Amino acid sequence: MFFASDNAGPAHPSILSAMTEANQGHAMPYGNDAIMDEVRDRIRQIFEAPEAAVYLVATGTAANVLSLATLTKPFQTVFCAPDAHIQNDECNAPEFYMGGAKLTLVGESDKIDPARLASAMGTRARIGVHSAQPGPLSITQATEKGRVYSCAEVAELAAVAAAAGQKTHMDGARFANALVTQNCSPADMTWRAGVDVLSFGGTKNGCVGVEAVIFFDPEAAWEFELRRKRGAHLFSKHRYLSAQMAAYLKDDLWLEMARAANDNMARLAGGLKALPDVSFIAEPQANMLHARLPRAMHARLQEAGAVYYLHGTLEGPAEELLEARFVCDWSLPAAEIDRFLAIAAQTEATAG
Amino acid sequence: MFFASDNAGPAHPSILSAMTEANQGHAMPYGNDAIMDEVRDRIRQIFEAPEAAVYLVATGTAANVLSLATLTKPFQTVFCAPDAHIQNDECNAPEFYMGGAKLTLVGESDKIDPARLASAMGTRARIGVHSAQPGPLSITQATEKGRVYSCAEVAELAAVAAAAGQKTHMDGARFANALVTQNCSPADMTWRAGVDVLSFGGTKNGCVGVEAVIFFDPEAAWEFELRRKRGAHLFSKHRYLSAQMAAYLKDDLWLEMARAANDNMARLAGGLKALPDVSFIAEPQANMLHARLPRAMHARLQEAGAVYYLHGTLEGPAEELLEARFVCDWSLPAAEIDRFLAIAAQTEATAG
Amino acid sequence: MFFASDNAGPAHPSILSAMTEANQGHAMPYGNDAIMDEVRDRIRQIFEAPEAAVYLVATGTAANVLSLATLTKPFQTVFCAPDAHIQNDECNAPEFYMGGAKLTLVGESDKIDPARLASAMGTRARIGVHSAQPGPLSITQATEKGRVYSCAEVAELAAVAAAAGQKTHMDGARFANALVTQNCSPADMTWRAGVDVLSFGGTKNGCVGVEAVIFFDPEAAWEFELRRKRGAHLFSKHRYLSAQMAAYLKDDLWLEMARAANDNMARLAGGLKALPDVSFIAEPQANMLHARLPRAMHARLQEAGAVYYLHGTLEGPAEELLEARFVCDWSLPAAEIDRFLAIAAQTEATAG
Amino acid sequence: MFFASDNAGPAHPSILSAMTEANQGHAMPYGNDAIMDEVRDRIRQIFEAPEAAVYLVATGTAANVLSLATLTKPFQTVFCAPDAHIQNDECNAPEFYMGGAKLTLVGESDKIDPARLASAMGTRARIGVHSAQPGPLSITQATEKGRVYSCAEVAELAAVAAAAGQKTHMDGARFANALVTQNCSPADMTWRAGVDVLSFGGTKNGCVGVEAVIFFDPEAAWEFELRRKRGAHLFSKHRYLSAQMAAYLKDDLWLEMARAANDNMARLAGGLKALPDVSFIAEPQANMLHARLPRAMHARLQEAGAVYYLHGTLEGPAEELLEARFVCDWSLPAAEIDRFLAIAAQTEATAG
Repeated sequence: MFFASDNAGPAHPSILSAMTEANQGHAMPYGNDAIMDEVRDRIRQIFEAPEAAVYLVATGTAANVLSLATLTKPFQTVFCAPDAHIQNDECNAPEFYMGGAKLTLVGESDKIDPARLASAMGTRARIGVHSAQPGPLSITQATEKGRVYSCAEVAELAAVAAAAGQKTHMDGARFANALVTQNCSPADMTWRAGVDVLSFGGTKNGCVGVEAVIFFDPEAAWEFELRRKRGAHLFSKHRYLSAQMAAYLKDDLWLEMARAANDNMARLAGGLKALPDVSFIAEPQANMLHARLPRAMHARLQEAGAVYYLHGTLEGPAEELLEARFVCDWSLPAAEIDRFLAIAAQTEATAG
Repeated sequence: MFFASDNAGPAHPSILSAMTEANQGHAMPYGNDAIMDEVRDRIRQIFEAPEAAVYLVATGTAANVLSLATLTKPFQTVFCAPDAHIQNDECNAPEFYMGGAKLTLVGESDKIDPARLASAMGTRARIGVHSAQPGPLSITQATEKGRVYSCAEVAELAAVAAAAGQKTHMDGARFANALVTQNCSPADMTWRAGVDVLSFGGTKNGCVGVEAVIFFDPEAAWEFELRRKRGAHLFSKHRYLSAQMAAYLKDDLWLEMARAANDNMARLAGGLKALPDVSFIAEPQANMLHARLPRAMHARLQEAGAVYYLHGTLEGPAEELLEARFVCDWSLPAAEIDRFLAIAAQTEATAG
Repeated sequence: MFFASDNAGPAHPSILSAMTEANQGHAMPYGNDAIMDEVRDRIRQIFEAPEAAVYLVATGTAANVLSLATLTKPFQTVFCAPDAHIQNDECNAPEFYMGGAKLTLVGESDKIDPARLASAMGTRARIGVHSAQPGPLSITQATEKGRVYSCAEVAELAAVAAAAGQKTHMDGARFANALVTQNCSPADMTWRAGVDVLSFGGTKNGCVGVEAVIFFDPEAAWEFELRRKRGAHLFSKHRYLSAQMAAYLKDDLWLEMARAANDNMARLAGGLKALPDVSFIAEPQANMLHARLPRAMHARLQEAGAVYYLHGTLEGPAEELLEARFVCDWSLPAAEIDRFLAIAAQTEATAG
Repeated sequence: MFFASDNAGPAHPSILSAMTEANQGHAMPYGNDAIMDEVRDRIRQIFEAPEAAVYLVATGTAANVLSLATLTKPFQTVFCAPDAHIQNDECNAPEFYMGGAKLTLVGESDKIDPARLASAMGTRARIGVHSAQPGPLSITQATEKGRVYSCAEVAELAAVAAAAGQKTHMDGARFANALVTQNCSPADMTWRAGVDVLSFGGTKNGCVGVEAVIFFDPEAAWEFELRRKRGAHLFSKHRYLSAQMAAYLKDDLWLEMARAANDNMARLAGGLKALPDVSFIAEPQANMLHARLPRAMHARLQEAGAVYYLHGTLEGPAEELLEARFVCDWSLPAAEIDRFLAIAAQTEATAG
C-alpha cells in the first residue's frame, strides 16, 4: 500500500533489461553512443519535431533547472505556480543554476490562470532597471495537485508569455500521465501549443533515472550542453541513460505505464469518493490525489502499513479531516488498492 | 582496441545484476533505501571510519564539486595541480558550485610538490582582503598522468594544508587503481594521511555511474546533503545507485577490477616500452599512460581501429613523435592489447 | 515640488564641506583612514554597542545584500515583506549576492505580522532536504509604505526569528526617519530588540552616498569584509565615505535632517488630508505617503511641475482615484509644499 | 614621502568643487541627471565614438567585473596576465560577477605576449564540452608593473582575440598615465586598436571615486545597466559621480594630472637609477616602479617615514636587495621626492 510517490516504485523490467543489453563492449562516452542516436530520432518522431535538440539527464530537477538556466538571464524572473516543484521541492536549485534569477509566483495554487499571468508579466514589463526583468513561463504538466492543463489551456498560457516576448518551459515530470488523459498528441501538447522547452519525465513513470530535455528550437542547444557539463550532469557512461529512454519509448511502454498509473488512481479515487467523510481537494486527472480524510481513517490506514504524505499528526479529534497526498505508480497491484479501500471503509463503519 | 578512456568500457555484469535484483517492489526514495544502509556500513568498515558520512552521486564531477563546495568559501581558492580534472575537464563546474571561488595551480604537472604547495598557501596567507583567501587542497589519486601518490606523499601534502589551516580533498576517480599498487590500506591512503573528504570513484572502475563522497569528519554532512539536492544530484530512485555501490564493494570486486585494469596497462606499457621509438612521459603506475609514438605508428594503429587520445594530427613527418594518452579498463581482452602491440611493432619494422 | 524620492534631494552642505576638508594630503586607503576610526567609535557610542563591527559602503542595496549574504547560506530563504526593497527594487541583487538563496514573502504588504512570520518560518522548519531551508528575517524600518515598526514590534518579530534559530536584519535606509518618531533609542530599536545586523542609511537622509553596516555581534566581521571586497564595494579612497558619515553623525545632524523630512511630510499629509477626495493607503509615520488622489488633481499637479510616482496614467475619468507615492526629503522648502497643496485644493474647488 | 599607491593621494580640488557645485536642489537619480548627459557627450567626443554607451561606477573593481560579466558566459574563461588586478587584487570578484567563469593566465608577468595569447586561445578552441570555453581578453593599461602597451601592441593583441572570435576588455585604471606617454589618441589606444570595452579610470588619477565604463559597441548596454543595478553599483545620487567625471575631463585636467604623476615618477626613477646598488624590474613607463634596493636603504627610508610596498622584511643582511613597489600620484610635491632620494643616497654613502 505504497502511495507516497511514483518515485518509489520499481522500474519496468524492460528498462533494466535494456540497460543490461547495452552493457556490451566499449561505447563512446558523453552522449556519443549509438543508442542515443536512436533515442534522438525516436523523440523527434514522437513529437513530430525533426529539428528538436534532445538531451538526457538523470534527475527531474536537473532537467528543469538546466532548461530554465538556458532560457533565463540572471536579472530576470521565471513565472510559475506557487505549488510548482521548482518553487517548493528543489532546494533553490533553479536560483542556483540561473545565477540568482527569481521565481515569481502567479496565483495561489497548482495551475496558472492566463489573466493573472498576463497581469504579472505585464506589470513587470513596465518597470525599469530596479526590478527583476520578466523571464520565461514554467508550467507543470500534470500539476503537483494531480490536475492537467488541456492543450488549449497550455496554448493560452504560452500565448500570454509569447506576447510578453517570453519563452515557455514545461515541467513534464508526469508528462505521460497528463498526455494519456487527453485527446491530443505530444506535439499538440507542446510546441504546437507554444512550448519551447520540455522536461520529458521518465523516472517517475517507470524508469530507473532518466529525463529528456527537448528544445523544439535547437538554437540554444550548445549552451545547454555546456551548462549540463558545468552542472556535473553529463554522464560519461551515457549509454545507460540512452538505453533506459530507448526502452521507455519502445512499443509505447511509456504510454502503457502512464495509463496503468492513472487507472490505479482512478480505482483509488473511485473507492475513496464513495466514502461519505472523504473529500477531494481537486478531482484527480492523472495519477495523484489530494484529499481530506478523517484522522481516525488515517490512523487505521497507517497502522495497517499504508504509506503516503499526511499533512498533520495522528493525535487529535478522530473526526477531524486531515489532508493527504496519494500517488499511484504503474506497478501498484489492484489488490493493494482494494485492501487500502477496504480498510478505509472499515473505519467509516466503525466511526459510524 | 579501445584505449580512449576507462569510462567507455562496460560495467561489470555483477553491477547490472545487482540493479536488476534491487528492482523489486517499492523502496523509500532519496537515499533512504535499505541498500544504502548496507553501503554506508560497508564503506565505514573498509575505511575503518565508523563515523564517516557517506553519500552517493552519479558522476565524478558531481562528487568533486559538491565536496569542494562544502569545504570552500566563495572568497577562497582551492589549490590543485595544473593537470587536475577539476581544472581542465569540468567546464567551470567547480567555480560554479563554489560560488566563484578560484583554483590556484601549483607546479606544472599532474603531481603537487609539498614545497611549492607550502609556498603557494603561505604566500596567500600573508595577503589581506584584496586577494582570494587560501582554501582547501585537492589532489588526484591516481593522477591525470597515471601516476600515484604514495601514502607518505599524501600525508606530506595534507600536512602542509593542515599547517595552513586548510582541509584536504582527494579526487579518487581512480582511487582503486591507485590503492592496489600500494602497500597501504584505504584508511592509510586517506584519513590517516590527513585526507578530509574523498571522491571515491566507481564509474571509471566498472560501474554504470556511481561515486561515493566520504566525509571522514561528518560535521558538514547536512550542508553536503543540501548542496547535493540544490545541485540536482539527489536521486529519487536512489536504490539503483546503492545497488551498484553494494555490488562494487562486495567480495572486493572493486579491487579485482582495478587490478585487472592496471594489469592491462602493465601489459600495454611493457610492450610499448620494448619499441625503440616510443618514450613515456611518465612511468605508468595505474591504468593510464602518456607516451610519445612516431606519427607513422599512430597512423597505422588508428587505421587498424585503435581508439585513444592523440595530441596532434596524422599529417606531417612520419618519424615525428606525437604524444598520446592510453587508458585501460578492467574489461580489455589481453588479445586486443597484444594485437595493438603487434601493429605498433610492425610499424617499427616497416619504418626501419 | 519634488516628491519623487528622498534620493533626489541635495546633500546637506556640511557633508560636502566635510569631504572637502578631508581632501588634504595622503591617507591610508581601504578603510584604514583616521576618520573611519572616529566614525566607528561614534557609531558604537550612539548604539551603545562597544563591540559592534562597523563598515561603510556607498549604496543602500550594497548594505542590504552584503549583510544578507553574510547571514544566509545559499540553500536558505530570507523572510521579508512583499513590499520590501530587497524584493522589488534591487534587480535580483540579494539572490545574486546570496548565491541563489530565495526570498519568501510574508503577508501582503509592507509590514510583517509576527503570527504569519511564525507560521512561515515554522512551516519551513518541518521540511527536509527538498525545500529552501529557513534563513534570516529582514525587516524595513521605516517601511516602503512610510510606516514604522514600534520598538516592541521589532522585538516581537526578532523574537519569532530567534525562536526559529534565525538572525534578524534591518534595512534602515530610512532608519533615522523611523527613529525620530519613537520614544526609544537607537539601541532599543536594534540590538536590544534583537536586531543582529543593521543597514544604517545615510544617502536618503542628506548624504552624498554612504551607508553603514553594523554587526552588533562582530563574529562575521571578517567574512563581511571579504564579501564587500568581492562585491567590488570596498572604496580605495575610503576617507570620503568616512568624512560623510562623520559629518552626518556630528551634532546630531542625522536626526535633525530626519526630523525636517518627517515634518515636511506632516505638512504635506496634513494638507492633503483636509481635501475631501483624497484618501491615504496608510497613515504616514515617517517621510513617505501613499495616497489616492483624483486623476484631475494629478493632472493639474503634474502640469504645474510636481514630480512624484503615479500608478496609472493621466488619461481616463477625471474623478477616478489614482494611487501615488510622495516622499519628502530634509531640503524641501515649506513654500513648495504649500504651493503643491494650493494647487491640489484648487482642483477640488474646480472639480466641485 | 607617500609612494604606496595613487589611491592614497587627495583628489584634485576641482573635483570637490564640482561636487559641491552640483549640490543644488533636486536632481533626477540613477544616472538621469543633466551632468551625466554632458559627461556622455564629452567622453564620446574625446574617444571619437559618437555611439558609445557610457556608464559611471565608483570603484575600479566594479568597472572591471561588470564589464567582464557583460562580455563573458559562465562557462567561458577570460585570458589575462598573471599580474592582472582582476587575478590578484579583486578577491574573486570577477569569478563572482561572471557566475563562475575562469581566468586563464597567459605568460608569467604583467604584459601579454601575442604569440602566447594565440596559443592559449587556440588550444582552448579545440577542446569540447569538458573545458572552459574561450572568452574575452583583458589587458591592463598601464600594467601592474608600470609598463605600457603601445597602441600597436594593443592592436596586435586585440587582433588575436578577434581572430578567435573574442572581445577585448581594457582595464584602464591608469589609462591616462598610459596615454600621455604615447603618440596616439584615446581612440587609437582603444576602439581603433580593437578594444571593445574600456574601464576608464578616474579614482587613481585624482578623483574621489569614479570610473567610466565605455562600450564602444552599445549593443550590450541594457544588459550592463541591469548587471550594474544587480551588483548594487547604481548610485541613486548619481550626480556626484557625474560631477567628478565632468570636472576630471574639463580642460584636460585628467591629462594634466596623469602628466604630473608620470613626471613625479620620472624624477624618482631618475634619482634612484643614479644609485649604484639599485636596479629596476622594468623601466617605468607611467607612474609606477618596481625596483630592488638594499635592505639598509629600505631601513633608512622607512625610518624616515617613507611609505611604499616592500616585499620582505627589514631583518636580514644589510646589503641584500629587496623588491619594492613605488607609485607616484599627481599631488606629490617634488620636494618630497627629492628628500626621499637624498635619504636613499645617504644610505649609499654610509654603506660605502
